[in-house]
Amino acid sequence: MYRAPVDEIAFTLKHVAGLQEALDAEQLGDLSGDLVDAILTEAGRFASEEIAPLSGEGEKGTPLADAVVTTPAGWAGLYRNWIAGGWNSLTGAPDYGGQGLPTMLSVAANEMWNASCMAFSLCSLLTMGAVEAIEAHADEALKDMYLAKLISGEWTGTMNLTEPHAGSDLGVLKTRAERAGDGSYRIFGQKIYITYGEHDFSDNIVHLVLARLPDAPPGTRGISLFLVPKFIPDEDGNPGVRNDLFCHSVEHKLGIHGSPTCTMIYGDGRFGDTPGAVGWLVGEENRGLACMFTMMNNARLNVGIQGVAVADAAYQKALDYANERTQGKAPGWQGKGMSPIIEHPDIQRSLVTMKSLTQASRAISYCCAHAIDMANSAQQRGAEEETVFWRERANLLTPIAKAFSTDIGVEAASMGVQIHGGMGFIEETGAARLLRDARIAPIYEGTNGIQAIDLVTRKLPQSGGEHVKGYIAELKEVAAEVSGKNNPDFGMTADRLDAALEDLEAATNWLLQALQDGRVKAALAGATPYLRLFGLASGTVYLAKGALVETVEGNAARIALCRFCAENLLAETSALKEAVTEGAYSLEQARSALG
Amino acid sequence: MYRAPVDEIAFTLKHVAGLQEALDAEQLGDLSGDLVDAILTEAGRFASEEIAPLSGEGEKGTPLADAVVTTPAGWAGLYRNWIAGGWNSLTGAPDYGGQGLPTMLSVAANEMWNASCMAFSLCSLLTMGAVEAIEAHADEALKDMYLAKLISGEWTGTMNLTEPHAGSDLGVLKTRAERAGDGSYRIFGQKIYITYGEHDFSDNIVHLVLARLPDAPPGTRGISLFLVPKFIPDEDGNPGVRNDLFCHSVEHKLGIHGSPTCTMIYGDGRFGDTPGAVGWLVGEENRGLACMFTMMNNARLNVGIQGVAVADAAYQKALDYANERTQGKAPGWQGKGMSPIIEHPDIQRSLVTMKSLTQASRAISYCCAHAIDMANSAQQRGAEEETVFWRERANLLTPIAKAFSTDIGVEAASMGVQIHGGMGFIEETGAARLLRDARIAPIYEGTNGIQAIDLVTRKLPQSGGEHVKGYIAELKEVAAEVSGKNNPDFGMTADRLDAALEDLEAATNWLLQALQDGRVKAALAGATPYLRLFGLASGTVYLAKGALVETVEGNAARIALCRFCAENLLAETSALKEAVTEGAYSLEQARSALG
Repeated sequence: MYRAPVDEIAFTLKHVAGLQEALDAEQLGDLSGDLVDAILTEAGRFASEEIAPLSGEGEKGTPLADAVVTTPAGWAGLYRNWIAGGWNSLTGAPDYGGQGLPTMLSVAANEMWNASCMAFSLCSLLTMGAVEAIEAHADEALKDMYLAKLISGEWTGTMNLTEPHAGSDLGVLKTRAERAGDGSYRIFGQKIYITYGEHDFSDNIVHLVLARLPDAPPGTRGISLFLVPKFIPDEDGNPGVRNDLFCHSVEHKLGIHGSPTCTMIYGDGRFGDTPGAVGWLVGEENRGLACMFTMMNNARLNVGIQGVAVADAAYQKALDYANERTQGKAPGWQGKGMSPIIEHPDIQRSLVTMKSLTQASRAISYCCAHAIDMANSAQQRGAEEETVFWRERANLLTPIAKAFSTDIGVEAASMGVQIHGGMGFIEETGAARLLRDARIAPIYEGTNGIQAIDLVTRKLPQSGGEHVKGYIAELKEVAAEVSGKNNPDFGMTADRLDAALEDLEAATNWLLQALQDGRVKAALAGATPYLRLFGLASGTVYLAKGALVETVEGNAARIALCRFCAENLLAETSALKEAVTEGAYSLEQARSALG
Repeated sequence: MYRAPVDEIAFTLKHVAGLQEALDAEQLGDLSGDLVDAILTEAGRFASEEIAPLSGEGEKGTPLADAVVTTPAGWAGLYRNWIAGGWNSLTGAPDYGGQGLPTMLSVAANEMWNASCMAFSLCSLLTMGAVEAIEAHADEALKDMYLAKLISGEWTGTMNLTEPHAGSDLGVLKTRAERAGDGSYRIFGQKIYITYGEHDFSDNIVHLVLARLPDAPPGTRGISLFLVPKFIPDEDGNPGVRNDLFCHSVEHKLGIHGSPTCTMIYGDGRFGDTPGAVGWLVGEENRGLACMFTMMNNARLNVGIQGVAVADAAYQKALDYANERTQGKAPGWQGKGMSPIIEHPDIQRSLVTMKSLTQASRAISYCCAHAIDMANSAQQRGAEEETVFWRERANLLTPIAKAFSTDIGVEAASMGVQIHGGMGFIEETGAARLLRDARIAPIYEGTNGIQAIDLVTRKLPQSGGEHVKGYIAELKEVAAEVSGKNNPDFGMTADRLDAALEDLEAATNWLLQALQDGRVKAALAGATPYLRLFGLASGTVYLAKGALVETVEGNAARIALCRFCAENLLAETSALKEAVTEGAYSLEQARSALG
């Protein structure tokens, strides 16, 4: 059973991501280190003791009958307990009942929710995205009507983007919106892959829906965002008339079986007198995509966190099994009978790989959250340059946090299955479920290929390439610090970090030059290996940053983990760099071999 | 839908694995190239047209009621058609109705069966293993009673090794056998993970069961192998009295849902007057493990083939989807509207990676089959030295064929899911099923970790290390040939092959030295990265070997694929070599970080 690694999470937040420094500089309001510890401890308890025991129930699925979805046994009550604990409102605006806590804390808590049960925790990720979009773009009337209930979690939110023909490319979506004349709109269309589009956790569901107005320009510049509630609130703000929308079907998926993935139908006349789902505009007409990006950035980081979470859950499960299961005699085994399989070096290699990559992706994701918090703090203080800097940092790290972490999630879950041997393939064990659950994260909220393209074509060119160069320079300082320590326990860590950062620098410069020269295709050809290179290099540097903190318990183990990663996994950056800088031509040629 | 790549399979057999040379030298009896083509073409037709359309039925599972397992709709008839076509008897001994064809052909056909439906095809893999064990070790009476029916496929076979506490370590198994006094034995015990332990394909099921005699020495030297039929044949050789064994339960698995994985109970008295399943000894008492290894080597190569097969099926499905699905505009796209996603360089990279690694693992597996055939041919001719050489070659390549190919199977299936985007996570699409099916292959027939240990500790030391060194020298000749061509289309292929083979050589020498020095733990620490390094290097050399054949159609595409692999994927060998030669110490240290 999952045990929330509260100490490791707190350490990473404070000493790797920069929370301690921000606390010391009073950049996070009156938040104290003690409060951080208290929140993390209680979140860990709730995740381990309340959520994890119910996670297996999700496998029974979410049956749909007459447009009503029934969630797994115990989950609706669990959700109510969870919101009663205030967990949905961590980062919400205090004006609407939120606790105004930093993103770093919400991300850390999300890791624990998702590690204990990804399918259950997905619901609130969407609500949090909706809250951000409404906070940033909706008018006061909509905010007053919806924000408090969404922030508390009394109502939940969804994101309605995808249509059968419009996935990564939203410019071609067809759902249409008509002006009703009273300031509201009527929505007509079909949306697919709507996570928690229908469920029994809450009294109302607030759908954020992308649609096109009749006179909208074609493509992405003609998309508007609408708020479309399942029940239209009455004058007192309570759920009133049923809106003309419903869940038509629930997908049969590889994983996250407890999370209903719905096809939603808007405006076909099933409910109400005249067809058309009543909606209200969020932001300006035809500017819906920009509003939706507010949700998507938040969601992307939190999907990255799902990767970290599943990787950690898989690691814990595999570690438990490796300690219990005996088989064969490992070299040097002095005990009686067979040795626990953890004594076999090959099993150790898998476990240490899982642990170090989990910690690396956790650090990247928390650093991304830190950048978001620093940007918000700087903005509140009116520090413009600082705001730009931290926004660019968050922008840079978001695709890495999303794609690298979710790839690690799948890899770790697969290694976890392998460590279980035949038991890993049997569903009762639970290791296979983690792999099935993990597999969605590289796909949704922008496939990892889209993340890599975003990294290369939008994030590298920020500030003319200066931002990413400055970031690499920061990483090099950490490497230099390791080198300066002259601590033999670090082994060849410093040299390996130097080599990896040179690879990162070379690949970055090559891509920036290619973009400048208009060789976009060549740059895109290397986007995925580049993102992997970026994640491996920065993640290992963050392991080193943590290992340099000698004052906190567990330092020897952190040095050992960092060294393993540097000496066993990091050298891959050289191959990845070559794929970026020299692979594009042969890729183009090999197109002919695809048959 | 899967289309058997008959031309590519025939090319690989003939020009990469060495079939053409063997035919020319008349080392394979009166087999002709035309007959090879005819067999492969007909196998391809059967796989694509008969098996593939029924593969989806397997998802409904194999319900068990009152010890009877019902296989998916249409499968029992499909099986009967398949054996009627003679497909089960390809390699069987002609004295018992087999066709005596080389392993190369059977392996190629197995690829097609497994690509069209792995769960269905698994049944015959086990039967083939049983045939080999009985041919090699059973006495004449048992052969006369069972071989013809197993070779035709009228009866099927199983392997009963695993018990709950005895998986990779068979020395601790508890199933017991008692001498009945009439030359037969009575078997008592429970076996798990018995593939097709019970089903309705055939009139009888012949179980090969490992068990321990009362006076057996402890450990692996006290294990005997028994033949235990479901129905004891009567005097005419027809299924007679029901034996005291039955299927107690069927596992709920991650994948291969159409293949019943059974827990078998022997000798609890459910059938027959006195408890005890009647069995006959195969080989000598207490020498059962050696007999079982005959089955396991065959099975390991064929499980490797399952990796190749699933990888190819995943590639074909992803290629079809990438050609059909339109989304966004790829750089340079001149067509109307959105481009097919295959136009996006990132998708191309995934597809070319899948294709090149599939072809690399296919070549390794076919070369392993070639070595088996060459050994058999040399043995028949009484050429002792040659026999030893080819046995050692087959021994060397078996763990690579098994582990590298099955890892590629999982990786390719996962990339296939990713290329499908959201559709990949929906079960109806079928991409997710390939991933679920693929995931068993790195586990069964000896986990890939066990394969890596086998490679390092048993295969490298063959002939004092000279065999593997000679093999690497052969690979270097191919690299030299590429270099000698001076064909600019090969790009940097020759240099990359040289570098990879130097890595392979360095890692091999390091491991041999470590074993010689008694540093077994350090050698084992690098076993898995070493196996991967071996597979990448040899697989890419085989791509080059194929690309050097200029006289066969498709040469330009083969050069392009080889070059892509060399310039984009092969450089990983450097990192893997470092993990082998320098990673062991830091791995040992990092044990402390496992918590």
